[in-house]
Amino acid sequence: MAPLLKDELDIVIPTIRNLEFLEMWRPFFEPYHLIIVQDGDPTRTVMVPEGFDYELYNRNDINRILGPKASCISFKDSACRCFGYMVSKKKYVYTIDDDCFVAKDPTGKDIDALAKHIQNLLCPSTPLFFNTLYDPYQEGADFVRGYPFSLREGVPTAVSHGLWLNIPDYDAPTQLVKPRERNGRYVDAVMTIPKGSLFPMCGMNLAFDRELIGPAMYFGLMGDGQPIGRYDDMWAGWCVKVICDHLGLGVKTGLPYIWHSKASNPFVNLKKEYKGIFWQEDIIPFFQAAKLTKECDTVQKCYISLSQQVREKLGKIDPYFTKLADAMVTWIEAWDMLNSKDSKDSKEADANSKLKGK
Amino acid sequence: MAPLLKDELDIVIPTIRNLEFLEMWRPFFEPYHLIIVQDGDPTRTVMVPEGFDYELYNRNDINRILGPKASCISFKDSACRCFGYMVSKKKYVYTIDDDCFVAKDPTGKDIDALAKHIQNLLCPSTPLFFNTLYDPYQEGADFVRGYPFSLREGVPTAVSHGLWLNIPDYDAPTQLVKPRERNGRYVDAVMTIPKGSLFPMCGMNLAFDRELIGPAMYFGLMGDGQPIGRYDDMWAGWCVKVICDHLGLGVKTGLPYIWHSKASNPFVNLKKEYKGIFWQEDIIPFFQAAKLTKECDTVQKCYISLSQQVREKLGKIDPYFTKLADAMVTWIEAWDMLNSKDSKDSKEADANSKLKGK
Repeated sequence: MAPLLKDELDIVIPTIRNLEFLEMWRPFFEPYHLIIVQDGDPTRTVMVPEGFDYELYNRNDINRILGPKASCISFKDSACRCFGYMVSKKKYVYTIDDDCFVAKDPTGKDIDALAKHIQNLLCPSTPLFFNTLYDPYQEGADFVRGYPFSLREGVPTAVSHGLWLNIPDYDAPTQLVKPRERNGRYVDAVMTIPKGSLFPMCGMNLAFDRELIGPAMYFGLMGDGQPIGRYDDMWAGWCVKVICDHLGLGVKTGLPYIWHSKASNPFVNLKKEYKGIFWQEDIIPFFQAAKLTKECDTVQKCYISLSQQVREKLGKIDPYFTKLADAMVTWIEAWDMLNSKDSKDSKEADANSKLKGK
Repeated sequence: MAPLLKDELDIVIPTIRNLEFLEMWRPFFEPYHLIIVQDGDPTRTVMVPEGFDYELYNRNDINRILGPKASCISFKDSACRCFGYMVSKKKYVYTIDDDCFVAKDPTGKDIDALAKHIQNLLCPSTPLFFNTLYDPYQEGADFVRGYPFSLREGVPTAVSHGLWLNIPDYDAPTQLVKPRERNGRYVDAVMTIPKGSLFPMCGMNLAFDRELIGPAMYFGLMGDGQPIGRYDDMWAGWCVKVICDHLGLGVKTGLPYIWHSKASNPFVNLKKEYKGIFWQEDIIPFFQAAKLTKECDTVQKCYISLSQQVREKLGKIDPYFTKLADAMVTWIEAWDMLNSKDSKDSKEADANSKLKGK
């Protein structure tokens, strides 16, 4: 049996190092196409293990392809991964960090994280009413008594947010306070995050439907020249959730787990995060109150509307948010440039000229 | 070590049969006080195993204690259990069905469901923002990166909704379609149901804080003389969730599991449920849209306001809802009658005159 969605899914990996971690993923990832976004020094060579089918973009490529619009893609920060979402020509994207390895389920079996994400994306979500037995579409589960029948068809799933065993995804203060905490709890569940509820989306182990939500998966301005880091995926998650709620799309979280091997340095993280720790106290209420009108009937229109609200409401907190609002607009322009019908052909030609494996 | 909340929690059990099921629960329940609400024929004797400390109420007792207000307590339906919530003098209540047995965790150990409910009730809930690693207060877990620090204190937990292994709590149509489905999935998680999201609350394995939410735990008019059954706990759950959201209280679901031994008859259930299956399509949007003003600053005031909205909005669907709205008011009157400062002394005297074990 051919691997599911083999020709409809790209794996996007941001990296600054050689990709030996792919060896462990070989049985699961080898059939798929990889998009590697090389961060930092473009003259450095990133080694990719033999046999993988990939295209690789460094900063020079990003600048060449996007021209002045390249300003919306972060540098020296894994937020650069969203460039990979933009150049993908597939319906689905899975993105994973290069310090994430194959986890084992409680029976000791290797978890095919990608296969589980695909399963999550291909079955509906239930954001309008909570099901106490978790994902009702799963084998051996269903909707419980009292679940309205009119809601049992669910809504299309746009995002599958996977979790991490071993090193949990904590902020710097929590890392500092609990340096030895490890996540050993395997929770055998996938659930839909209810409509109206925001969540902290982590980009470490994340899959989504590009066609449904791609243009909202912008990881913001982080890293080099920016006052903040480590809020790239959070930013994307807040925007994505508000837009999914508006457009009637679902966001799932839970299984699959990956094995997160390496805690980042909490002191470095604190430096990157500390403005975010203050700002998020305003950003969350902002997103909880954000309104999208019924004219916002595409992801792009929703995203532009959000950018205007960011400029207007968050711009008061710090000039950074005005710059971010500009970048949100640039991101949509760049997305549309690369993803219009015409551009798809030229993109293909361009992709063919890239360094390729296999 | 004394059992937690030994003198602050009552176990409420509705029944029509002898309570042999308590034998299996003896190690966990024996230290606690039981309130048994005998449904159906009051002349029948319900046998309670030796050694349990209990009070028992049959229909004659309910009529005697509540007088004309007894009309709000259902007859020939396990909805009668809410009479037990009303006469309890404790801060916490745990209610369980008499076909529920001790479940085992994946290591084969007996699950002390009551202890886990108590743990759930004694630590806060997080309805305002979703935590992807589930209950952040649990050993080995915490708030993940991106969770606003201002929300990490949480809110008081009013309800702990436990789940069921073996026979899942399905409606009649699902029972008919999947007669052999069993729930074997042990999901090792407790989570807060986000603010604004309704859920199907099952009364089989349920704990709550009477002081925080007791007056909203009304199981409605079901059974004898009513056009509907099996929506008692659902009704309570919808009211409770709307009121908890308004008052800033939390509702948790997940662990602990009990072992649900016996599927009820799907044909009988269909007869009880079928009006509810239609009605819930209107009831859910009703509760999703229900508004409580800031004058509603107690559970009682919230509940009376809901009863007015039920009369006004749902009364149009069927005269049953007008009768239910009346009963909601009667329930609050009865609650206040038994739970005012003065009434507590007389209730104690009354309780002392009841049949008692041990």
